[in-house]
Amino acid sequence: MDFIKGKIESEAIRFSEAKSHIGQVVKVQGTVHKIRKMSGFAFVILRSARDLMQTVYSVEFSKFDLNSISEGSSIVVKGLVVEDQRSPIGCEIQMHYVEVLSKPYEEMPIIINYKKLDVNLDTNLQYRPLALRNPRERAIFKLQEGIVRGFRDYLQKQSFTEIHSPKIVGAGAEGGSNIFTLDYFGKEVFLAQSPQFYKQMMVGVFERVFEVGPVFRAEKHNTSRHLNEYVSLDIEMGFIKGFEDIMNLETDLFKHIFELLDSEYKNELELLKVTLQKIDQIPSVKFMEAKEILAEKFERNIADFEDLEPEEERLLCEFAKKEYNCPFIFVTHFPSSKRPFYAMDDPNDPNYTLSFDLLLNGLEITTGGQRIHDYNEQLKKIEKKSLNPDDLQSFLMIHKHGLPPHGGFGMGLERLTMQLLGFQNVRNTSLFPRDINRVTP
Amino acid sequence: MDFIKGKIESEAIRFSEAKSHIGQVVKVQGTVHKIRKMSGFAFVILRSARDLMQTVYSVEFSKFDLNSISEGSSIVVKGLVVEDQRSPIGCEIQMHYVEVLSKPYEEMPIIINYKKLDVNLDTNLQYRPLALRNPRERAIFKLQEGIVRGFRDYLQKQSFTEIHSPKIVGAGAEGGSNIFTLDYFGKEVFLAQSPQFYKQMMVGVFERVFEVGPVFRAEKHNTSRHLNEYVSLDIEMGFIKGFEDIMNLETDLFKHIFELLDSEYKNELELLKVTLQKIDQIPSVKFMEAKEILAEKFERNIADFEDLEPEEERLLCEFAKKEYNCPFIFVTHFPSSKRPFYAMDDPNDPNYTLSFDLLLNGLEITTGGQRIHDYNEQLKKIEKKSLNPDDLQSFLMIHKHGLPPHGGFGMGLERLTMQLLGFQNVRNTSLFPRDINRVTP
Repeated sequence: MDFIKGKIESEAIRFSEAKSHIGQVVKVQGTVHKIRKMSGFAFVILRSARDLMQTVYSVEFSKFDLNSISEGSSIVVKGLVVEDQRSPIGCEIQMHYVEVLSKPYEEMPIIINYKKLDVNLDTNLQYRPLALRNPRERAIFKLQEGIVRGFRDYLQKQSFTEIHSPKIVGAGAEGGSNIFTLDYFGKEVFLAQSPQFYKQMMVGVFERVFEVGPVFRAEKHNTSRHLNEYVSLDIEMGFIKGFEDIMNLETDLFKHIFELLDSEYKNELELLKVTLQKIDQIPSVKFMEAKEILAEKFERNIADFEDLEPEEERLLCEFAKKEYNCPFIFVTHFPSSKRPFYAMDDPNDPNYTLSFDLLLNGLEITTGGQRIHDYNEQLKKIEKKSLNPDDLQSFLMIHKHGLPPHGGFGMGLERLTMQLLGFQNVRNTSLFPRDINRVTP
Repeated sequence: MDFIKGKIESEAIRFSEAKSHIGQVVKVQGTVHKIRKMSGFAFVILRSARDLMQTVYSVEFSKFDLNSISEGSSIVVKGLVVEDQRSPIGCEIQMHYVEVLSKPYEEMPIIINYKKLDVNLDTNLQYRPLALRNPRERAIFKLQEGIVRGFRDYLQKQSFTEIHSPKIVGAGAEGGSNIFTLDYFGKEVFLAQSPQFYKQMMVGVFERVFEVGPVFRAEKHNTSRHLNEYVSLDIEMGFIKGFEDIMNLETDLFKHIFELLDSEYKNELELLKVTLQKIDQIPSVKFMEAKEILAEKFERNIADFEDLEPEEERLLCEFAKKEYNCPFIFVTHFPSSKRPFYAMDDPNDPNYTLSFDLLLNGLEITTGGQRIHDYNEQLKKIEKKSLNPDDLQSFLMIHKHGLPPHGGFGMGLERLTMQLLGFQNVRNTSLFPRDINRVTP
């Protein structure tokens, strides 16, 4: 009988700790990122989870054959830490011995050790498991981790409870044409398009809930801003006084996320040359006022009075940036005709809803609003939308037996990452994107 | 133009803050959980996200009609905080005024305000959105939040990066009979059974990764410990010295989770009458030794030399509890025949793998081990398992171009919750369970 005590021994120090070991012999481990051979010596750049570090091979002090390692080898280096002012971490290591933990069998089909990956998007995605080893590529997803972490940390401090709702759903899904169907032991079921019903159900349980999880949309169009599977950041909040509470929460949330990224993800922001603008307040304009601004300031001929066109989202952000120096703008009071059956109508004008979109750098990143909590009001709206209440029984259960006033929002993680980091295609900010032509790797 | 500044105003205080307001008139908000009418007065129990609080209605000091509220109403109470030694929070509130925010239309089909929900499991699940309002029922999922939070917090401190891998997968899925297939624009694709391949791919990028996300298994049998969709807690860790590193990490992880639950989820543990035993170390036994123990100590006739039978898992935990006072036991070195193609064989005896299961209170909760990182070794094992390497191209890419030694584990959140809290059916610890007969609510 052995006993596992919960201690992991490692003699290797982290790259970031090396500077405090100048003059000492230490062990570091990592993957060989790049070898630059000079005459009589070589620079061997090691890659670890978040950093690069220069080690130096020389016939003078290295007691192994340089040919025993190659780009892609995982190695442990034993060597002397020496000061180096030019290095971003202030030191480099003179390699004495090397232990090879694993080795590659073939050269990379793409060059991952350029500063910027120099391949087109299709090639990047074809070789995704390798492309992501490029420090700039992986920085996108380290920052994405930071966004999710900021989202969770903030909401937990605001007494939100994290939930995990099912992704296989039966009757009562929102429906529409962009839903995936699935054979479930001979029965037709669906993949969840959003956790909307479940988060509303859970408002009756935990008052404030959030979820981070995949959602599925069978979009047939192949655009730069749509994915068929994406990670949705969702919140729902009970006992609100109005949908402005949700917008205030989201504003404060973004302040928190930006602060976290600035403090703990500095290297990654620098690698991607991204500066996050400090947010103090976010301008907010009603849907019809937004259309007026578009007509007046941009001499736009307004054709669609039910929704915002992509070009209009772009222009509104241009306006917010110019007039208020803000990359964000809220648009509120979208027409009832275009919002779902659970959206609460504005009591002052039921043609519009107590809802909002949040735009960032030219694109909608969030849809939210207040939901109907009253049973009769919900039944009436279901009727008005020509839906069948029988299909929504388990959802209506919560209204029938009492539900506080509530609202929330949903936000696609990949699209938010794209807008925040300034990418032009959402596939760049999806770890393994799914579109109409792509389900591998 | 309005401006959203990120501040939410609320005059209502939290139940837990009430005690510091004794003698003052305050506002509290919540849902009416229970009304107990006496002569001339009534106890009105309010429910908020995590607590209950007693408020008192009396013709003497209440300036509203008691009939204006009912069980299930969401209300704001304005009233005087008075000391009450019998109350768990040390005080109660004399109701002066009430503002009704929303009201129920029908009485509950199940009684949620008993201490323990007194319905069978089927009824519980049929009325799940209501059943979860019972404080004991929802405590299960508050604790589940705590488990996930402990998992993430711990791994983040150990420099793990959180990833989000796709749930729609094409060629290269693990396969087998328990996989769901899906029509994807005319093409047959699958729902992910685990993030295994993706987390191994990401070891080459971030060295240490974890994921919390849904996985899907088309299990046809309807047991008390299987679900067709569950939340999987997954980790994968590079630069390990051996699979013992993974077991040590998991042991330390559980110590952390238990501490977090004990410190921040005390009320919920008490509601469910659960005491978490302090873990110092976990006994670990090899698969064949485990079979010997079963034969010798329990006089069991061993029939299966390839896997552990459910009864054997139960007996091994009984053994660990009795001999070492530990609710956990590791079983290591499972036969190669029963482990997947990416499991690393034991160099001392390739009939067995460098793998482990972790058992808790009678049931397997984790499967893990070291994975093959060498390209040729992986190709050979694929051949031995009669699989086609062409189907695994994007997976093999990582081995071909260099991957550090690594390993990891996967753990079902609902099953872990069941074993930790002492439930007999995993449906009790799944928010909205999916089984062969159930896809709603």
